[in-house]
Amino acid sequence: MIKAGILGVSGYSGKEALEILLSHPEVRVTYAAANNTTGKIADIWPDLAGKTPLYCEAFDSKKAIQSCDVMFLATPHTAAMKIAPELLKAGLKVIDISGDYRLKNISQYKKWYHEQHADPANLKKAVYGLPEFFREDIKKAKLLSNPGCYPTAALLALGPLVSFHANIIDSIIIDAKSGVTGAGRKAELGLHFCEVNENFKAYKVLNHQHTPEIESYLSKMAKQKISVDFVPHLLPVNRGILETIYVTLNDKISLNQIHQAYLRFYKTEPFVRVLKLGNQPELKNVCKTNYCDIGLALRKDKKLLVITSAIDNLLKGAAGQAVQNMNLMYGFKETEGLL
Amino acid sequence: MIKAGILGVSGYSGKEALEILLSHPEVRVTYAAANNTTGKIADIWPDLAGKTPLYCEAFDSKKAIQSCDVMFLATPHTAAMKIAPELLKAGLKVIDISGDYRLKNISQYKKWYHEQHADPANLKKAVYGLPEFFREDIKKAKLLSNPGCYPTAALLALGPLVSFHANIIDSIIIDAKSGVTGAGRKAELGLHFCEVNENFKAYKVLNHQHTPEIESYLSKMAKQKISVDFVPHLLPVNRGILETIYVTLNDKISLNQIHQAYLRFYKTEPFVRVLKLGNQPELKNVCKTNYCDIGLALRKDKKLLVITSAIDNLLKGAAGQAVQNMNLMYGFKETEGLL
Amino acid sequence: MIKAGILGVSGYSGKEALEILLSHPEVRVTYAAANNTTGKIADIWPDLAGKTPLYCEAFDSKKAIQSCDVMFLATPHTAAMKIAPELLKAGLKVIDISGDYRLKNISQYKKWYHEQHADPANLKKAVYGLPEFFREDIKKAKLLSNPGCYPTAALLALGPLVSFHANIIDSIIIDAKSGVTGAGRKAELGLHFCEVNENFKAYKVLNHQHTPEIESYLSKMAKQKISVDFVPHLLPVNRGILETIYVTLNDKISLNQIHQAYLRFYKTEPFVRVLKLGNQPELKNVCKTNYCDIGLALRKDKKLLVITSAIDNLLKGAAGQAVQNMNLMYGFKETEGLL
Amino acid sequence: MIKAGILGVSGYSGKEALEILLSHPEVRVTYAAANNTTGKIADIWPDLAGKTPLYCEAFDSKKAIQSCDVMFLATPHTAAMKIAPELLKAGLKVIDISGDYRLKNISQYKKWYHEQHADPANLKKAVYGLPEFFREDIKKAKLLSNPGCYPTAALLALGPLVSFHANIIDSIIIDAKSGVTGAGRKAELGLHFCEVNENFKAYKVLNHQHTPEIESYLSKMAKQKISVDFVPHLLPVNRGILETIYVTLNDKISLNQIHQAYLRFYKTEPFVRVLKLGNQPELKNVCKTNYCDIGLALRKDKKLLVITSAIDNLLKGAAGQAVQNMNLMYGFKETEGLL
Repeated sequence: MIKAGILGVSGYSGKEALEILLSHPEVRVTYAAANNTTGKIADIWPDLAGKTPLYCEAFDSKKAIQSCDVMFLATPHTAAMKIAPELLKAGLKVIDISGDYRLKNISQYKKWYHEQHADPANLKKAVYGLPEFFREDIKKAKLLSNPGCYPTAALLALGPLVSFHANIIDSIIIDAKSGVTGAGRKAELGLHFCEVNENFKAYKVLNHQHTPEIESYLSKMAKQKISVDFVPHLLPVNRGILETIYVTLNDKISLNQIHQAYLRFYKTEPFVRVLKLGNQPELKNVCKTNYCDIGLALRKDKKLLVITSAIDNLLKGAAGQAVQNMNLMYGFKETEGLL
Repeated sequence: MIKAGILGVSGYSGKEALEILLSHPEVRVTYAAANNTTGKIADIWPDLAGKTPLYCEAFDSKKAIQSCDVMFLATPHTAAMKIAPELLKAGLKVIDISGDYRLKNISQYKKWYHEQHADPANLKKAVYGLPEFFREDIKKAKLLSNPGCYPTAALLALGPLVSFHANIIDSIIIDAKSGVTGAGRKAELGLHFCEVNENFKAYKVLNHQHTPEIESYLSKMAKQKISVDFVPHLLPVNRGILETIYVTLNDKISLNQIHQAYLRFYKTEPFVRVLKLGNQPELKNVCKTNYCDIGLALRKDKKLLVITSAIDNLLKGAAGQAVQNMNLMYGFKETEGLL
Repeated sequence: MIKAGILGVSGYSGKEALEILLSHPEVRVTYAAANNTTGKIADIWPDLAGKTPLYCEAFDSKKAIQSCDVMFLATPHTAAMKIAPELLKAGLKVIDISGDYRLKNISQYKKWYHEQHADPANLKKAVYGLPEFFREDIKKAKLLSNPGCYPTAALLALGPLVSFHANIIDSIIIDAKSGVTGAGRKAELGLHFCEVNENFKAYKVLNHQHTPEIESYLSKMAKQKISVDFVPHLLPVNRGILETIYVTLNDKISLNQIHQAYLRFYKTEPFVRVLKLGNQPELKNVCKTNYCDIGLALRKDKKLLVITSAIDNLLKGAAGQAVQNMNLMYGFKETEGLL
Repeated sequence: MIKAGILGVSGYSGKEALEILLSHPEVRVTYAAANNTTGKIADIWPDLAGKTPLYCEAFDSKKAIQSCDVMFLATPHTAAMKIAPELLKAGLKVIDISGDYRLKNISQYKKWYHEQHADPANLKKAVYGLPEFFREDIKKAKLLSNPGCYPTAALLALGPLVSFHANIIDSIIIDAKSGVTGAGRKAELGLHFCEVNENFKAYKVLNHQHTPEIESYLSKMAKQKISVDFVPHLLPVNRGILETIYVTLNDKISLNQIHQAYLRFYKTEPFVRVLKLGNQPELKNVCKTNYCDIGLALRKDKKLLVITSAIDNLLKGAAGQAVQNMNLMYGFKETEGLL
């Protein structure tokens, strides 16, 4: 039984982490904090009334250190890197759900997150928490950098292909659509119900901060530089990401061959489901689960592969994957609390 | 051709008024202003691009007076009463879409709007703009107080009954459900897409500021004091109000008799549709229109009448009715711009 | 470990029951069937892919009897009563989620379900499965009649009041709002996305088949005849019921007194949460849970009590409560599989 | 004043056409019919109560011919081509909103619509009704083939580019997202509210019948063969299409140059709005209008152009454009009834 704390429990990801950990048989949640909200968890999240007597405090690193073995940081970008060092130094394991430890290149971090990286020393040691590709490193991680929601769906969709067939890829376009929890829980006119409901739009076209994250880890998998074009859209649903990925190929390969490679690659993975040819992922099949569903289609001339992938942005795209990583870091059953 | 101005054009009601007036053959919109937003209308409301070159200014009463014959005040409560006096003094007609001139009793105003009334002199002269009941007064109004959204649906639903059968009414319960535009266009966590979508709740139970407005005008219609119990709810839709009204009767009356009375009462009204017995109003039939649809049902023992009424809260419940009132005030065709 | 079967697994309630039972530690799902759908569960419900190898068969009573200890009937009304007798005779326990065994009066059944009751013998022995009120009977039940969704929310909201204060109740009006899963999973124009989305309406006004069920069990609790007026509405959400209940009182009682009585009554109940005074239930706090949340408000003159209650219609209003009942019938922990 | 008839008035497009025509100053609607629905329009579409006394009849070609100058065919595919010949022969003008007269190649028609074309003679003379590109032909048309919803958004987005720069285009990928009215008004489980709401998915991946239509007219504009890859998705909204189009370029061109070309091309068009650079189309800005909004973005290396376009699928994508075409065919003001 380990003691876990969550910082950022008033946001959607932090709350989701809390909910999973509360029913996790190997974990006791001993600490919950948020930046601008304090009070009983049951008052902040009335759906959790009766499930926990926890109190959400203003963050205090000393108290956090005394109370916890592991801390989940569900904070906004640029906040985590200022908090993690002290926790790590005190011996806690840290699972950062924010973007702070994902880009190894600090000038890239500066470019996309508009702030100098505050903790380059730990950044080097941070392990990127995509279990399907980096499981062994995760098991040994002290500082776990949990993948972004869009990158999770993209990397799982493209990983097997770039791992085995990087040489035949000419270009990759990712057309991504996300539910509104992905934008965070904040009072903003653009997130007002009537601005989102019955609406749909692209945003940050070719200019989203998850682009370098996707490219960086695809390149690592491919052992060669891979570029992608990435356009996100805002869907009028609470949860879920669906990405439609267009891969131009410079050599022919059969759909069956690709499908078999994906099936083989994910055969023993508990949270990736490669669909039958002809079937397509749907948000409703993955929402409220830690699954990633993947569909495949090929143009008749075999030069354009269309990969579709769907996840719940708050689970496989954030808190669910964070717990999966925690399970690996502590040697628990990888699916504990998640199935 | 009259010159109209709108204050509060960055809000949902002000925008709706603008949209109607832009295609109104008797009106030229000569002035648009808002409190915290300035810029081209086409930038604030991109759907209106190509339809108007208007600019939304910071409100300036002198400029407003020079530019307009009539001013629509689509401001928050407590703002209109500080602006109207100067405009009225300068000879403009004023149509106040806010709640400031609806309650004739200033201590009631203070109780429900939490501020001393700033303009009791004009309050006395303000005409309540429910055309179906106060048409002749409206025609002569200088200061028109446009009814609240909930009161409009309630008064049209109950008006014929209290006018002719007040004596057999024992009690009235109004269970009201409103779309989210009714809460205004503001950056508020409670109006975040994910807090409203797939959700439903009651709020201000027995304690909503529209209660005294409903009671006051029902009493006027009935020529005796009428009380109501009022519970509003927040619906996960953009527009529309549906009210289910339970009237306990102390004497028997047949459903047919009531239905005929309603049909007769609204026979010549252009914007009230009394449905066939057995049919029920639906939001989708009134949204984007200035109609109020009314349905009637009676318990077998004839002691409980259930009246349902539906309107678009931004049209018959706000800007549409405001233009209907303007049409009456200026002797235009009452339905101009609204059908 | 018991063997459970589900008939009607292609519908929303049957699927929900399946999902709970698949992760229930005391149950093995050994049989799944539906009327018009056969095939692998993972094909009918792709979100369950990887969670079960079960096959959905055309119903065959012999096979069902051989395979199961208990059968959940998630069938349409009038189907369950033709199937239950054979199962009961063979020694299975039966949990009927449909309406077939809820009304003890067969002429009432005929009136509201438009068919002669086919199994009056078992009807007499059927136990109504509302654990908070009939727990001891449920423990001994062979044929469990699971409450309707609307009645569950109504009875939990009104139960304590009618149990202790029936004498001060003058009248009860239930204004109910339900999500669309409550209407079932069928190809029907009225349930087309565009007919429901951005819409809201009342239906079966004062004429819904759940009315006699509510009255019957309220009367049993009150030990005197209780009548209610019931008006349901269709909400544009997937799941959830919220009922706003207006109780006219003929004697004064303080809100605090009522609140304390409710707190006391439900003190040890695992699935009923009486909210703090001033708070109101919201669908999002109960959806995907087996909870019923209850809010209370009283008019100043203490003569009108407004009770609001919210449940997930598929869980506490159907499959969740069915499993809660199964837990009681088999002596399992009452909350097993449900928290 | 011309006399217009509509066949298919019980569907979404037919209803939309009816609504526009009812308030069109140059048109009298003299005939309305549908295949499986008869009755008063006000009963089929209660929102139109009070606006028309029309009756929807079972289609009778003789009556149609006697009553109308022009007939709108808002029928399912394969129905229009069996009805149009008789109407045309009798001298009526025909505006076909279905897909029957869009593909000039009858073997292509057979492949995508799964039926032999029944009217190849008229097919040759049919004019494709995209006014921005084929206005002069439309003015003379007797048989007008109204563009598909997806093709309208695609052709307006790509038209200027392929017209002037076809030679620098390497490939075109169209990632399209449509609201549910695009799927038609039919009782189908896949269109059930709970199957669509909070969901999102791709369908007919690289295999949608609008692909050859897009390719055919792009090729006509470009005066050379143009191919596209097309993947549609189903959005949980009532109305609207947004397409994100990825054009790979083999030569550099500046974003400004493209933007200026688009502005110039559409300068005098009443229904196309080319947005400022940096702005993106949103469904809410075009829904309930006949506008198409277009946004442009270019990758830094100038080799990938991202064009986004948005329309209301029922207006510019169907009935609105059909009326625009009618206006041209009869020499009315092109925007009559549509602004």
